[in-house]
This record gives sequence, C-alpha cells and structure tokens, in this order.
Amino acid sequence: MSELCIGIDLGGTFIKLAVVQCRDSGWQVLAQTQVPTPTDSADALAGAMIEGANLLMAGLNADLANVVGVGIGAPGPLDRAKGCIVNAPNLPHLAGFLLRDRLADALGIPAALENDANAAALGEYLAGAGREHNSLIMLTLGTGVGGGIVLDGQIWHGSHDFAGEVGHMIVQPDGLPCNCGQRGCLEQYASATFLAKRATEAIEARPSGANGPLSAILAEEGQIDAADVNAARKAGDPIAAAIWDDAARHLAIVCVSLARLFDGDLIVLAGGLSKAGDDLLTPLRAHYADHNWTLTPPMTPIAIAALGSDAGVIGAAGVAWQSFSEA
Amino acid sequence: MSELCIGIDLGGTFIKLAVVQCRDSGWQVLAQTQVPTPTDSADALAGAMIEGANLLMAGLNADLANVVGVGIGAPGPLDRAKGCIVNAPNLPHLAGFLLRDRLADALGIPAALENDANAAALGEYLAGAGREHNSLIMLTLGTGVGGGIVLDGQIWHGSHDFAGEVGHMIVQPDGLPCNCGQRGCLEQYASATFLAKRATEAIEARPSGANGPLSAILAEEGQIDAADVNAARKAGDPIAAAIWDDAARHLAIVCVSLARLFDGDLIVLAGGLSKAGDDLLTPLRAHYADHNWTLTPPMTPIAIAALGSDAGVIGAAGVAWQSFSEA
Repeated sequence: MSELCIGIDLGGTFIKLAVVQCRDSGWQVLAQTQVPTPTDSADALAGAMIEGANLLMAGLNADLANVVGVGIGAPGPLDRAKGCIVNAPNLPHLAGFLLRDRLADALGIPAALENDANAAALGEYLAGAGREHNSLIMLTLGTGVGGGIVLDGQIWHGSHDFAGEVGHMIVQPDGLPCNCGQRGCLEQYASATFLAKRATEAIEARPSGANGPLSAILAEEGQIDAADVNAARKAGDPIAAAIWDDAARHLAIVCVSLARLFDGDLIVLAGGLSKAGDDLLTPLRAHYADHNWTLTPPMTPIAIAALGSDAGVIGAAGVAWQSFSEA
Repeated sequence: MSELCIGIDLGGTFIKLAVVQCRDSGWQVLAQTQVPTPTDSADALAGAMIEGANLLMAGLNADLANVVGVGIGAPGPLDRAKGCIVNAPNLPHLAGFLLRDRLADALGIPAALENDANAAALGEYLAGAGREHNSLIMLTLGTGVGGGIVLDGQIWHGSHDFAGEVGHMIVQPDGLPCNCGQRGCLEQYASATFLAKRATEAIEARPSGANGPLSAILAEEGQIDAADVNAARKAGDPIAAAIWDDAARHLAIVCVSLARLFDGDLIVLAGGLSKAGDDLLTPLRAHYADHNWTLTPPMTPIAIAALGSDAGVIGAAGVAWQSFSEA
C-alpha cells in the first residue's frame, strides 16, 4: 500500500504543509510548502490548507487517492473526538469549527487532528532524536514550555487531552505566579520568553552605572531575547550568567523528576531556547548530574531535537499514518 | 477457561498469598493466607511460597491445572527479564535468585514477577479505587513514598523498570537530603516515616518547657509515628499541625504536577499515612485546589486506596492474569 501521508502544522503566522513518505526505514519529506495563516475566517483557513495540499500533490505528480491520510497539528486545547479546536487565543474564529472533517471531505482522505506539541514529539520519535527509542518526553522551550509524551510509540493524551503539560509542572513551590493560575511553573523559569523577561527585570533593577552588554542591547533594541542573554553571558555579564544558569538548573530538576516518573529512553528539547545547543546542554547536563539520584547513573539522556521546525509536519503526518495505515 | 490466578505479595516480614477470581465483573479473593518470610535462604523462601500456594488450592478443593498463572509482587529493583530481584536490602539472599522460574517449575503454571508497588497499583486499578477508570497513579505513603503508574490498564515500567518513583520527584529544589542522593524528594516531606522524623526533630528543637501532647508521647514511648502526629494535631499541638499541613501541601504540589503530566483519571493514596483518611484528604484537597491551575477545574481527583493490604495480592494475581490469560 501507499506510504504517503500529508502533514499540516497550523501556526498563528504560517501554515506548513508537507507530503511525507512514512517508512520505518527512514521517514522522508518529499515536498513541503508554507502559506500565511488566513486570520479572517475559518473557511479561508481551511481553504488555504486544502489548496496547499492539492498544490503539493500536483507538484509531485501524485494523486490524493494514493495518500493514506492527512494529519493536522494545531494549538490546543482540542476536542479530538469532534475534530475541532476548543479555544485558540491567536485563532479565535477556529473555536468549534470542524476543521478535521472539512479537510477529510475536501481532500477525500481520512483526517486526524492532534495537539501541535504532541505532533512534534511524535515527529521526533519517528524520524528525529527519538529514532531507535521506545519512549520520549519532549519539552518545547519557546514562548511558554510545551510538552509531548510518547510511550511505546504512542502519544499519551490523558483522560481529557491535557496530558504532557510539562511547562506547568511545579518546580518551585509557591514560586513565580504563572498565567495558568499556578505558582512556580517550569515555564516561568525556563521558557525563552520568560528567561528574557527575567533578564529584563534584572537589568532594570540594576543600579544605574552598573551596565553590561545586556543593558546596551536593551537600550538599543528596546527588548532582549534569550539569545541575547546567552550572548551577554558569554561576553561576561554576571546577571545574564546567573539567569541562564538558573533556567538550566530548574530545567534539570524537572528532567530528574521526569526520569524518576517515566524512566524514559530520552528527553528531547525543542523550541527557541534549544537553538543555543551546547550552550544550553552543557550547564543543563551538569545540573542534571548534580540533582540526579546516585542509586544508578543517570539513565534518561537529554538531547536537542533533530528535526528543527520540520518536527511538526512530520509528526502530523505520523499521526495520520498511525491512525489510518494498516501496518 | 479458568478465571483463577494466584497472587503473592512478598514482604520483609510476611508473605501473603491469595487465590483470586479474575473477572471484569468483580475481582474476588477466594482464599488467602500469610506466612512468615523465611530469611535464612532463598530456597526456604521459595519453598514457603510453593507450600502456601498448594495449601490454598487444597483448601479450595481446586487443582493447579485450573489456575491461569501465579504473580509475585516483590520489592525492587527487579530484573523482570530474568525473573529475579536485583537487590533487596531486607532480603539479601534473594539477589539474583531465579524466583519466578522456581515457582513456575514447582507449581507447573506460568509465573510473572512484578515490582510490589506496581502490583498494588494494578490491584487498585482492577478491583479497587480505580475500577471504572482508564488510568491511575498510586502513591504509597509508608516508610518511603512508592508509586505505580497504570495507563490504559497497563503498568508503565519505563525503559529500565525504574518508572513510577513518585517519591523521588523533586518537590523542593535543593531541599532536604534524601537517601537516594537527591535533595528535596517528595518522600522527605510526605512519607509516614519522614513525617514522624520531622516531628521528632521539631520537638527536640523546641525550648524546654514548651511541651505539648507530642512531647509526652515521645517521652513515654521513645518514638512517635505519623498517627501520633495526627492525634497531636487534633489535640491542638501547633508543631504537629504545621508538620501535618506541610506534608499535605508538598503532596498536593506533586499531585498537581502529576495531573499536568498525565491528565489521569485518578490519583490513589495508599500506605500508612493514607490510613488517616479524611484527616489527610481534607487538607490535601484544599492545597490541591489552591495550587491547581485555573484554566479548568481540577480534573484528576484524589482518593484513598480501597483494597487496603489486599491490593498487593490482588494486583499480583492481576499481573498473572494480564500476562497469561487469553482474554
């Protein structure tokens, strides 16, 4: 039978689409494209997805009849039973719109809707850092901290499709208030956005005259991001160094708790902060070793995601493959 | 086919054995017994299990040929592939002894070896607080804090059979040192033993003359346990009240993190501390509500285990049933 699936990754700014060859011996993106996300109506958004999928297939001289299914990764929370987004702050007109069935009807192939963080975790599992492994936990260190859990090759959804919210594990009892209503959530310490926010607050609290590289960037550009904090740290700014290290430490503590709970094969880091690569991994692994139990050596390694921004479309295709292939 | 399995719960003091009718419509213990755990040799220990199983069957006028299998819940860490205990501080002669195969050979039925905390969690899932549910996390609040994870009806073992160590989730960064080599583990705050230890330390640090009910118990009996702390709290001892509340608070924070990660159907509490019932549940649920996010109402309820000390044998029988029945 065919090994082709279409993966769609719905973001607030772009829709990414790919035709993916789903084969255990090597997952491969055969064609991909991206289009701006229509924000005026749900119909326009679905139309852009349908048009994009048809164009990709035409470019491959392939027929939709040979495609096993289409998977859509979308920001949640979702109602997977109905196949719609319940509530997406950046795409309000999609709430309740039956996106999955619209695509299935228009393309004439089965469609599946999945949380985008879960889809990306499955992508890394099938084709990225998690290949050859049986389970992984993925943390996406971006605006917030998202998460996805893959156990025995299957996404763990939980009872209400809310599983995998690693960013809202409590790492600091009664710590910094979080938008979710909790206090001390991991994402307040280790997301790219909140790390930059912590740095901005620290600079603004610094006595005037005590300037460093980070102050100069803030003065010049009006804002700083996580990459600026890392650069300033490497240029010798002590506040930047302390904030970077503190993020790595909190992340390491949660990784230890994840290792104790899941005893998984791998913890994978994705998202903006993970682009720092070894600049993040080196302090993170040092804290992980320091905080880990001594009963065994650390058994769940930590790695950076391998697929970059392709994880979403590959994982979305993987959701369709797992749902609709007869393998 | 037969619905009978034998469940064995191996403890440091007693071996409990039961013949269990494994039926979805209602699991039932048909006969049970317990014998002191032989501590002189592995052969003697296996012999006591074999004799106990044969006596139970004889008492039921039943034949081992009608038994689907035998499950053994044992303190870990285990090597489930080999069917032996790797290392049990209280039963050192069992390390490396092929207990599973010895029982299978002697009884002539298939045998399975499982971590005792996992077996108890499966018991509660099949026949106790978790009936009618799809997933549960069990926390055993005893000498330490053990844990077991049941997802879609299956024990989650992890990659190295070390999953479910809820007691060694880090709840307090750089908190109290734990025997495992970590700092701030849940079990340092919320096990029955460590709660009593905290109380003892607090009493001994209290200025002389500032005595309460707890000091009297300590003076009289030389030690206090978790039930004493609860009784003293109810009698108005402020230190006991603070320690009890702090245990409930740390437990609640971990329960919030478990809910975020697993989005499970239920969190079940077992072990000595859980015998306090509502005295534990009431403050725990108050802290759980306080620390939970506000995006949804709390979705994973917390309950006390229903099977008491039978969870181990029923769960061990359940492991055999899941492994060897053709259902």
